[in-house]
This record gives sequence, C-alpha cells and structure tokens, in this order.
Amino acid sequence: MSLLVVSEGMDPDCFAKELRQLDSELDVRVWPDAGDRSDIRYALVWKPEEGLLASLPNLDVIFSMGAGVDHVLRDQQLPDVPLVRFVDPNLTMRMTEYVCLHVLFHHRRMLDYAELQREKKWTDWSQQPGANEVRIGVMGLGVLGMDAAEKLRMLGYQVAGWSRSPKDIEGIDCFAGADGLDAFLARTDILVCLLPHTPDTEGFLNSQLFASLAQDGQLPGPVLINAGRGRVQVEADILAALDDGTLWAASLDVFEEEPLPASSPLWTHPRVVVTPHNASISDDRAVCRYVLDQITQHEAGKPLQNVVDLKRGY
Amino acid sequence: MSLLVVSEGMDPDCFAKELRQLDSELDVRVWPDAGDRSDIRYALVWKPEEGLLASLPNLDVIFSMGAGVDHVLRDQQLPDVPLVRFVDPNLTMRMTEYVCLHVLFHHRRMLDYAELQREKKWTDWSQQPGANEVRIGVMGLGVLGMDAAEKLRMLGYQVAGWSRSPKDIEGIDCFAGADGLDAFLARTDILVCLLPHTPDTEGFLNSQLFASLAQDGQLPGPVLINAGRGRVQVEADILAALDDGTLWAASLDVFEEEPLPASSPLWTHPRVVVTPHNASISDDRAVCRYVLDQITQHEAGKPLQNVVDLKRGY
Repeated sequence: MSLLVVSEGMDPDCFAKELRQLDSELDVRVWPDAGDRSDIRYALVWKPEEGLLASLPNLDVIFSMGAGVDHVLRDQQLPDVPLVRFVDPNLTMRMTEYVCLHVLFHHRRMLDYAELQREKKWTDWSQQPGANEVRIGVMGLGVLGMDAAEKLRMLGYQVAGWSRSPKDIEGIDCFAGADGLDAFLARTDILVCLLPHTPDTEGFLNSQLFASLAQDGQLPGPVLINAGRGRVQVEADILAALDDGTLWAASLDVFEEEPLPASSPLWTHPRVVVTPHNASISDDRAVCRYVLDQITQHEAGKPLQNVVDLKRGY
Repeated sequence: MSLLVVSEGMDPDCFAKELRQLDSELDVRVWPDAGDRSDIRYALVWKPEEGLLASLPNLDVIFSMGAGVDHVLRDQQLPDVPLVRFVDPNLTMRMTEYVCLHVLFHHRRMLDYAELQREKKWTDWSQQPGANEVRIGVMGLGVLGMDAAEKLRMLGYQVAGWSRSPKDIEGIDCFAGADGLDAFLARTDILVCLLPHTPDTEGFLNSQLFASLAQDGQLPGPVLINAGRGRVQVEADILAALDDGTLWAASLDVFEEEPLPASSPLWTHPRVVVTPHNASISDDRAVCRYVLDQITQHEAGKPLQNVVDLKRGY
C-alpha cells in the first residue's frame, strides 16, 4: 500500500517526511518518483498536473492538502474516486482569526487611523458605532463560515449568513439561494466571502452585487472581505466600486491571478488590504495526521469524512 | 434636586441635553453656570478642576463619565462622598473590540504585511503560529479585563490574567500580586494592560517589566498593548525596548501626555500603532441612562453600583 505526495508550490518532501515519522510502515513516495504506479492507493495532492491522477490504476482516495479543491477539479481527466477536503479545527481557527481581524480592522477604521498616525493627527470619530450596530454577512456556511459567524456574534456583531442550501444556525440570521440573496446583501455592512470557486460562483463578487449592499449602515460605506477564492471576485469591479464609493474598503487574501502581479492597482490602492493567500494555511503536521487517520478508518471499512460532492464542486 | 455637569474635553451640553430628554423633571445645570451651589446633589464629571467638587456643600454622589477615575482622584480637595465609575456592557464590548483587534493585528503580523504590500511583495511566513500557540497576558481583571480575556480564549488563544488580588476565572490562568508577576510575565507573548492609574501602577510598564516577558514565544518577540492609562507606561522605556528588540511591537491607545505631542517619536516608530485614546469611548446616551438609573435607585434607598474604593484608587 503506497501513498503518493504530489505538490506544486508546497514542499512535498516536508509532507513525506512528516508522514513517514507518523507511520513508519506506510510506503510514501514523492512525485515524480512514483515507482510502479499500480502500487499507489492514496494520493495527497496540491495542484496535480492534468491526467496524473488518472494514470494511477489502483487509486482509491485523493486527499487535498487544503480546504479548497478547485486545484484538483480543474483536472479534466479526474478519476472517479472519492476526493477528500482537508478540514480540521486548526484550519478553522486560523480562518476565524483572519475574518475577525479584518472585520474589526475596518469596523474600527484602522486604515484611517494609520493615515492619521502618519500625519501625527490626534483625531477621533466620536460617533464610532459599537459592534452591536454593525451588520456582518458571511457568504458560505460550511465549517469555516459557521465558526467565523459564531465568533463574530460573540464579539457583539449582528451576523447573518448566506449559503446555497438553507441552514439553521442559532443566533445567525440565515439566508439561502438566489431568492435570499438581495435581502441578505441589503442588510450587510461588511461582507465576508468564504465561497469556494465553482462554475456557479465564478465572478460572483461583481459590480451588481456590490451595489446591492446596505446603504444605511453606521460605517461610511460597505466593506468587502474575500478569503475564499480569487476567481469568485471581479477585480476591475472591486476597483471601480472603491473609486465611486460603492465600497468603502476591502481586505483581499485571494486574487484572480496568484501571486498578485506587480502591475495590479490593488497593491497600492489606499482602501485595500492585500495579504498573500495566507488567511488560513494548512498546518503540515495537521494535514498528515488527518490523512493517516482517514486511511486507518477507510482500511477498517469505515466512511471517509469531508468527501467532496463533485457536482456541487465542494 | 439638581445635577451639575462638569466636563473639560467632552461637550457638557450634549450630556445635559440628553439627561433633560430622559428626565424632564431633573434640574440639570452645566458648569460654570451652577446657580445656587447648595442645590447640587449630584455631579457628572470629566476632569473637574481642583476644589470645584468641594465647593458644593450638599453634594451626595459624584459620577465619572468614564471607567477611569484618575481624572477625579487627582483633586486634592475631593469631598468624602461616593464616587461612581461608569461601567456598562457597551463600554465593555468596545474595549474587547480594541483588545481582540490589536492582539490579532500583531499575532497576524499586520505591520509586516502592510510593509510588504507597500513594496508589492507576495511573501508569506509559512510557520505562522495559530492562536492556540500564542500566549496572551491580560493585566487588570475587572469587568473589562475579564470580558477581553474570555473573548480571546474563545478565539483560541492561551490566556492568563494578572490582578492585584487573586481571582478565579474558568479557562483563564490567574496570577496575582507582586509574587505572581514574574511567572505571569515569563509565559506572556502579548501583554494587554488595562490597569487603572494609581500611585501603585504609575510607571509600571517599564524596562524591567519588558525584560521579564517570554523569550521563547512563537512570535518574533513580545508585544505590548496598553489601553489602560498613559501614566502606567514609561514611554522612553517602550522606545528603548522596541529599538533593542526587547519588545517586537506595541499598540498604544493612551499616553503620558494626551493628546500625544507631535514631537513624540511614538508617532513615527515603525513598530508602534497609535490610536487617540478611543479604545472604548463611553456612549453619551449610555452614560446618561446609567446615571439616571443609579440616582433613582439611590433616592429609593438602594445601594449605588461600581463605587470606587478610594484607598485602592479604582
């Protein structure tokens, strides 16, 4: 029984070393040194090249190194075996850190205070709203979105969520589907997007959506926070919305093209906070423990966890 | 029965207007138009001038417009009547917003990412610790400190607290007094100070204390966050500690002199975040409702809430 580590961008040898330390009996191979491909039962992958997984005749399960699986689903020759996303409390905690940080950052006007500090100006906006007067809208209510929504609620915010299919979460005002979208946006001051990239969500964060956000909030204007996937956003529309006041500010962790090209005006826009797609980075050790636990369960005939619905794309 | 509003810095007429709207029968006067001083039973004050309160012969209760009362206690002729601090859920929520924001801000290295953004550099620190690997120490475990500590714990941090007298709070590692200080500091990566200004705390945040903070943390160095009172910190020591690496970064909302003079090197220090003493601003309406509620209770012979212990100074 062999496991193949395939990674472009993340160091595959780190994962292989960690896996071998945790389970000395597992035969761990690192692409492109796959050996006899018919030995490979499991693959742990990040951005595998087109057709590679289809070339493994006895592949049983594909594990994604991250919560997103668009990097796997783009493979047109993807074999028909279970694809498992990585979701664990550590990844969730880190995403919640990012979301709470950037919500608080804009609510408490840190871009403005940084400018005042540069100008050595002691100025306060005396009518600063409290968290209980600010309405957050979280798009995407999977494990990550639910945890972020709950922590924001604990900080005092008015929190609503929007998802494709209806959900029921205590303390969170839940909206769903195309029918629920307008009402969700119309009550949202700070929009947090954690949507996966699928054909349905591509270009979803566009001018029309931004224009539907709340016009009557306690902040100077609506704020966009995207820590989902870059291709869910239309960057030209974000820039236009920031410049005409439809959006007041944005925090972006993901981009249409990554790394974000030096030519992008997002880098220098005074109302944009750019981070290098690190809102929530999978902890190598946690990924390895997760994969080994799932393999043990699977070998014992028990069901896999967090299997992707290939039709939905997440 | 008259109430006198005395305020330097905050607009006393706003408070008077709000009080009159809430209770049309109350005779509200605004200093210096006190009228017959023997009518005054209650005073709502911010930075009252020396001897003013002593000149009110029938004064029954002094209300502070804020949670801090050092601005009242500096009066050497303070009359011997109850002094009531302003504490309410709104003030607590706002302080917790500030504390969580600045803890997350430094933990997630936002000063570094802002610099990378200015340089259009797509760089990640791959070994970013999770909240569960970062140790926060909250000094001052009154209502504000306890709430901040609990919310930080919910975000996943390892949280300890330090207070003058021993406390017992679920999930928070509590240290107390001079005997507990070294152990508390030695396990603290991010120090959050919410201490009041008293003779005991003056200059407490100094070189010696900074040198006692954790040396083995997952962040590049210890961080100081002070949202208590400016005179608890020694600003020359903060600057020296930042420059020699004893401290890695600081967020300061309070200063030895306020407004912070333009000549202060804190304004332009690359590792310091300055805000204009607005971590938690009392909401005018909430202060007025609080004062009127307490007056009603007091007139009915019931005890006042949040009365300051003059010996302790808070």
